[in-house]
Amino acid sequence: MTELDSLRDELRRFSAERDWDQFHSPKNLAAALAVEAAELLEPFQWLSSEQSRQLSPQTAAAVRKEMADVLLYLVRLADQLGVDLLEAARSKIVENAIKYPVEKAKGSMRKYTDL
Amino acid sequence: MTELDSLRDELRRFSAERDWDQFHSPKNLAAALAVEAAELLEPFQWLSSEQSRQLSPQTAAAVRKEMADVLLYLVRLADQLGVDLLEAARSKIVENAIKYPVEKAKGSMRKYTDL
Amino acid sequence: MTELDSLRDELRRFSAERDWDQFHSPKNLAAALAVEAAELLEPFQWLSSEQSRQLSPQTAAAVRKEMADVLLYLVRLADQLGVDLLEAARSKIVENAIKYPVEKAKGSMRKYTDL
Amino acid sequence: MTELDSLRDELRRFSAERDWDQFHSPKNLAAALAVEAAELLEPFQWLSSEQSRQLSPQTAAAVRKEMADVLLYLVRLADQLGVDLLEAARSKIVENAIKYPVEKAKGSMRKYTDL
Repeated sequence: MTELDSLRDELRRFSAERDWDQFHSPKNLAAALAVEAAELLEPFQWLSSEQSRQLSPQTAAAVRKEMADVLLYLVRLADQLGVDLLEAARSKIVENAIKYPVEKAKGSMRKYTDL
Repeated sequence: MTELDSLRDELRRFSAERDWDQFHSPKNLAAALAVEAAELLEPFQWLSSEQSRQLSPQTAAAVRKEMADVLLYLVRLADQLGVDLLEAARSKIVENAIKYPVEKAKGSMRKYTDL
Repeated sequence: MTELDSLRDELRRFSAERDWDQFHSPKNLAAALAVEAAELLEPFQWLSSEQSRQLSPQTAAAVRKEMADVLLYLVRLADQLGVDLLEAARSKIVENAIKYPVEKAKGSMRKYTDL
Repeated sequence: MTELDSLRDELRRFSAERDWDQFHSPKNLAAALAVEAAELLEPFQWLSSEQSRQLSPQTAAAVRKEMADVLLYLVRLADQLGVDLLEAARSKIVENAIKYPVEKAKGSMRKYTDL
């Protein structure tokens, strides 16, 4: 059993004990995940890229918690949808490697800047 | 080495080969993560909670890719910030268990509805 | 002068007085806007669509404030980018009318569900 | 009748003609708004703050459309919730002026960086 599987099982138990499965539809979990991702962005919003590399201990601790929330909702959503997260991530890396060949993508993120 | 560590290492290599570290500041990665989380929400936005439990194969495949993107940016951000994601997630579960005691939280997500 | 122009002018003054123009790059304002939009989503995340039509006075007041924040950042961003919001919105309605012809779009939001 | 009122009326007609009111619950509209706000953030995600002040014509045009989408969903949501957007925005400016007194807030956005 991988660590993500073990997180998944803990979250199942957590939700079952509280009778929360009724709230945890994929739609609601996807909304909750987007909310947490935005909370993770919030402390960075007025910082320069350079400043974001040197967070205060207080901000770093807050950011760590928001990252945890994102992971927890992602694992829970994957469970509800029957998605193997690690497998999905590995396939996406392969896909990205084809989409951004080293020679072409070097030092540029063009795709993203032309929307 | 856990699977998340191995994903982290693959992403390091991927970024180094393309000279993308310059773009991968925590601020930028947090923004990219929020964008991917919203792309994951998009296919659910007009569905009812019930419909979101029964996605078409096509939508399910698209959702799986967006989930992969969220995980990849999260792992990459954790690497840049020196955060141990699994440890952070486990601490957060403990914290949540205190915040939502079983007897009080049963069948209700009150905290969220009073904003 | 329209009301949005007058909001824009108030925000200019507000920011100038506080020397905040340095923080208000389009990138930062777009991030702040996304954060506020997610805060607006938060009180809805566990509600059913039906429940979301009947908010408690407390939640309704909180939602109203988040809507104000979204509008304020949007007006500020439009100012920084020289965008006429009303004109942009009117063009978009025309575009949408072509994209979703009445006979085809009736009772369905298909485009959105196939991602 | 203000311009926002007139946008609101056009959107009412647009939705009624397509029988879309059934999809436009506050919950769904808030999700759609968050998705559009993230799409607006996307073209900025890898840019520096400086670069975000000088968009290519192509990116500027795409950004303008995303801003329109945000405004349209915001106006539609306000209509469903009976919120007067301009009034809400004006109250929020007054509130912000109290929260960020000129002398204290000058040149700093501290509140945001301590999360």
